[in-house]
Amino acid sequence: MKLKLLLTSIGTLLLAGAANAQEAAATPVADQIADVKFIIDNLWILISAALVFIMHLGFSALESGLCQKKNVVNVLFKNVFIISMGLVTYYLVGFNSHYPSDWIIDGWLEIGGPAGYDSAAAAANETREYADYTYWADFIFQGMFAATAATIVSGAVAERVKLGSFMIYSTILVAFAYPIAGSWHWGTGYLNRMEIPFYDFAGSTVVHMFGGFAALAAIILLGARKGKYTAAGLKPILPHSLPLAAIGAFLLFFGWFGFNGGSVLSADAASVSLVFTTTALAAVGGGLGSILISWAVLKKPDLSMALNGLLAGLVSITAGPDVITVPMSIVVGFIGGIIVVFSVLFFDKLKLDDPVGAVSVHGIVGIWGTLALALPFFNGDNDSVSFGSQLTGVALVGAFAFAFSFVLMLILKVTIGIRVSEEEEDEGLDVAEHGVAAYNE
Amino acid sequence: MKLKLLLTSIGTLLLAGAANAQEAAATPVADQIADVKFIIDNLWILISAALVFIMHLGFSALESGLCQKKNVVNVLFKNVFIISMGLVTYYLVGFNSHYPSDWIIDGWLEIGGPAGYDSAAAAANETREYADYTYWADFIFQGMFAATAATIVSGAVAERVKLGSFMIYSTILVAFAYPIAGSWHWGTGYLNRMEIPFYDFAGSTVVHMFGGFAALAAIILLGARKGKYTAAGLKPILPHSLPLAAIGAFLLFFGWFGFNGGSVLSADAASVSLVFTTTALAAVGGGLGSILISWAVLKKPDLSMALNGLLAGLVSITAGPDVITVPMSIVVGFIGGIIVVFSVLFFDKLKLDDPVGAVSVHGIVGIWGTLALALPFFNGDNDSVSFGSQLTGVALVGAFAFAFSFVLMLILKVTIGIRVSEEEEDEGLDVAEHGVAAYNE
Amino acid sequence: MKLKLLLTSIGTLLLAGAANAQEAAATPVADQIADVKFIIDNLWILISAALVFIMHLGFSALESGLCQKKNVVNVLFKNVFIISMGLVTYYLVGFNSHYPSDWIIDGWLEIGGPAGYDSAAAAANETREYADYTYWADFIFQGMFAATAATIVSGAVAERVKLGSFMIYSTILVAFAYPIAGSWHWGTGYLNRMEIPFYDFAGSTVVHMFGGFAALAAIILLGARKGKYTAAGLKPILPHSLPLAAIGAFLLFFGWFGFNGGSVLSADAASVSLVFTTTALAAVGGGLGSILISWAVLKKPDLSMALNGLLAGLVSITAGPDVITVPMSIVVGFIGGIIVVFSVLFFDKLKLDDPVGAVSVHGIVGIWGTLALALPFFNGDNDSVSFGSQLTGVALVGAFAFAFSFVLMLILKVTIGIRVSEEEEDEGLDVAEHGVAAYNE
Repeated sequence: MKLKLLLTSIGTLLLAGAANAQEAAATPVADQIADVKFIIDNLWILISAALVFIMHLGFSALESGLCQKKNVVNVLFKNVFIISMGLVTYYLVGFNSHYPSDWIIDGWLEIGGPAGYDSAAAAANETREYADYTYWADFIFQGMFAATAATIVSGAVAERVKLGSFMIYSTILVAFAYPIAGSWHWGTGYLNRMEIPFYDFAGSTVVHMFGGFAALAAIILLGARKGKYTAAGLKPILPHSLPLAAIGAFLLFFGWFGFNGGSVLSADAASVSLVFTTTALAAVGGGLGSILISWAVLKKPDLSMALNGLLAGLVSITAGPDVITVPMSIVVGFIGGIIVVFSVLFFDKLKLDDPVGAVSVHGIVGIWGTLALALPFFNGDNDSVSFGSQLTGVALVGAFAFAFSFVLMLILKVTIGIRVSEEEEDEGLDVAEHGVAAYNE
Repeated sequence: MKLKLLLTSIGTLLLAGAANAQEAAATPVADQIADVKFIIDNLWILISAALVFIMHLGFSALESGLCQKKNVVNVLFKNVFIISMGLVTYYLVGFNSHYPSDWIIDGWLEIGGPAGYDSAAAAANETREYADYTYWADFIFQGMFAATAATIVSGAVAERVKLGSFMIYSTILVAFAYPIAGSWHWGTGYLNRMEIPFYDFAGSTVVHMFGGFAALAAIILLGARKGKYTAAGLKPILPHSLPLAAIGAFLLFFGWFGFNGGSVLSADAASVSLVFTTTALAAVGGGLGSILISWAVLKKPDLSMALNGLLAGLVSITAGPDVITVPMSIVVGFIGGIIVVFSVLFFDKLKLDDPVGAVSVHGIVGIWGTLALALPFFNGDNDSVSFGSQLTGVALVGAFAFAFSFVLMLILKVTIGIRVSEEEEDEGLDVAEHGVAAYNE
Repeated sequence: MKLKLLLTSIGTLLLAGAANAQEAAATPVADQIADVKFIIDNLWILISAALVFIMHLGFSALESGLCQKKNVVNVLFKNVFIISMGLVTYYLVGFNSHYPSDWIIDGWLEIGGPAGYDSAAAAANETREYADYTYWADFIFQGMFAATAATIVSGAVAERVKLGSFMIYSTILVAFAYPIAGSWHWGTGYLNRMEIPFYDFAGSTVVHMFGGFAALAAIILLGARKGKYTAAGLKPILPHSLPLAAIGAFLLFFGWFGFNGGSVLSADAASVSLVFTTTALAAVGGGLGSILISWAVLKKPDLSMALNGLLAGLVSITAGPDVITVPMSIVVGFIGGIIVVFSVLFFDKLKLDDPVGAVSVHGIVGIWGTLALALPFFNGDNDSVSFGSQLTGVALVGAFAFAFSFVLMLILKVTIGIRVSEEEEDEGLDVAEHGVAAYNE
């Protein structure tokens, strides 16, 4: 009895000892480790947000470099406005539209309120209970994406759009249209509810193609720049500064490491490494594709096309940098680089004037990338993606972006007007609208 | 007895077992986890140092973009010199002046020796014993801040300051004046000893306002550029390249994620995420504030003002990105963006010529940001900050920066002179002082 | 007996308890901690890859800024091509040439196949079994270095090289010559097999000096630009945009934090912090060295020299940022900054025309940095490096780069030609080869 008691006592002690050791070490240790991992994951999201931010400088430099000297201030002003307005409206309505709470039309339409949370939820939102990152990291990373759609349109409508109208247009596009399309995919909307959900890793469709098709509607209503499509044929309007455009394209490439890499939504070693690799290889594949094809077709090594080729490669891979295999990422980018050349020539045939090629780079190549990831040859027979779902997503987002943009631009056109006067266009928007030239002595 | 002995033995074994388990797991595990966390925290400080470094390119581009074509080489040369001299003097005397050991006047004055440590201390300085980061991470992060004060002055005195005099001035300012003011706050000096210590998270006052008020003294002694303030009124001197200025402003915004984010001094998920968010929202709030007010007042959408608005928003939040609430960060930035417009107009009324608006952006808006964080409406009734302490800090640092700069510039003025000749100013400093133009065929 | 049995039982239980606690906590915990550390190390390699990527923009801006207005498009086009081709060829043959499997000539020559691995190896390659980072992080980080050698040559041959010939030349150089030299050091080739192995931390010799000596051979065969060395003496050809060159130099400095910092190959706090510090101090030391010496020798404060001084400081430290002591890093950079000035003047004496000073900055200063780290005065009496081994490495890599480049260029010269016609040189390569000017209205 005594011995049994003893044994029991010892057993108890033993268990208690082990339990203590586990309590002091095992259980909280797992939490401690998870907390450290959380810090890394969160830090990567934040660094990615900074990288995506610099894409706004990339877009500014690319667009202003490709337009005429007399319209540079206008392009830069629009870009400062877009990032400013875009982040504020994303704070006010956009962010919560991506996090479904109250659907107005289930799966299709919701409008969120301002970001932020009551103090009761605050603590949890800054811990692993929320996600692999904090609430505000989530906000600032996604907020940097939000204005991109308007930036894409900005390039396409450059050199003739009326500033005030564009400011209204871009505000409504970013505050309402972009979050709605985003909620179909990133919220729990329709595209996410299909049997095999629509796949768009970092936003080839819901960011880039969205912007490209909104731009297409805008340039149809706006008309071409004066003097480009003449009776004697196309008269090219030359970029005012190719070094500025090159700075822009390289900075976009740089920022894309955050755009795609941050979309892993953690610092997971295997995933982020793969995404960096496929992203960079697709970009340079696109550069090579554009260089070769434009040389063959245009009979000269074309720098603008080479730069657009890099961007086309990047847009091509953005839908599936984790799905498309490494060797195929070069091929997918290469084809994207070829597509962009023919697309630019095609829209010029249609006399749809797009000074920076935004519809081609983001819209047409966005379609390519989104569909390509569903092709077995490119994704290594990955059956978690479906060509049908991809086509559905492309069609819905493209149609919505085009329609929303068309209606909004049309309303502005018949009310306050969307195009500057001929005199202003001749003089240039810088002096006409801003009272200052971009370059002075 | 035997049983008791047995029990004791078992108890001993048991404790030893648990202790072993803890030694093998719990204790060293805690250390191992802390070591990993240390690596992340340290890495973030280093990445932040790189981001703050790129602000020197931001300043270079902004300043050279806003000045005339004939003075661009001079501005760039000064900036290469400032970062070079600034980091070396910070190594030689600045860093240790921020780490009090031997006060010359307790709480007010000390001059440190070179950074570095004997081999005995070395090991500890590279571990958690030192801080959440290593000694050299501490050095390089803070070193990148050091030259900023001189860079701010550089912009204000551009286009007429004598190069040699400015090089002497900036060296003394960065080597002695900046660390002294810094030690009041970041060392254990007076501002840190008040009942409620002066609060300045990343240096709205001790970096930006310091630079702004040093600049104010300098431009008072230096006089305006020839031909700006004429009998017929103000004749604006136009920026030679607004794209260059825009590149500068965007890069400063980008680098500010490290300036403020790194000032958390760890990668703490909640803190860094919050700081990123308030920093970016204040910046874009500032952009919107400047755009709206300058449009209303100047009757045109002014790009220079929009860019300065972004920077004003950033300076506004820098004192308290962790104290000012998220929604209020937009408002604080917005007001900063309004202040900068009126401040620029005000200094022009006083005929104090500041080619880049440095006194306004960094000095006046620096005051605003430092005081704003103490207002309950903005800080969510945070009683760990005091309006009185903020006012004291602003007054002391502003007065010191102004007085030091004034005396130093005055000595240089009456000895070797601080202003180029009229002929050199007309010809431009590039050819006159450097023998080369910024732009050639 | 019973008691002994009891004790044994207790002992067994005790051990089992401890073992369980250890199994639940100690063993897997160690792995979990190692996994988290692995994520950080890997993330830093990836961020470094992005930073090294931006150096390609730095090179593009520096080179195009320093050349004439009429050859800017050509420089930029070459740079887009180099990064595109460089990354693809590194994928196809370069990467595996750095990882010896099948030497063709043991220790001296091997040609790798495409990067990638079978699915059996894939899992391991993405875990700690492979390294402190994943297979693809390894690839993308090193891939960003690969094209650098060709970029260095690009600057030296600018303004007169035939585009097609340069594209063939650079492709062969990057695909074959660079990996061969790299394998001697980074693979397990000859330089790594010496008693005290050749030390070159991040590639002062195998990247920079390699590029510089390849460039030297190229400009010997190519000849000087028309009109530079006249009967009346040297007629300087002025840089078309010093702001662009300054943007380039600062971005190179920025990217160098990844070039050197990432070469630690982990996020180790002590190592990366030290490397950041010595890298930055050497850079600014180089800036000061060039500023002072060029001022003394050329009698004017020369911006181009100051920018090249920053780069010379960076190249100087790249061989041993972890070996050269902190105070000596300033001195080593300072001397590098002095060397570059005299080297540029020296090559002009030899009438070897190098528009951007690439041979001096990367080649001559690369030698200096590689040897300096072996001097006891600079490395703090570190006997793990040998002056003899350093000299061997420098001699072998320099001779190989020069010879390979010379033979390749010679073959191109006697076949398709390497130089544009005099008319094309006069007109400028932009219009002659690309059909467009860099700057337009």
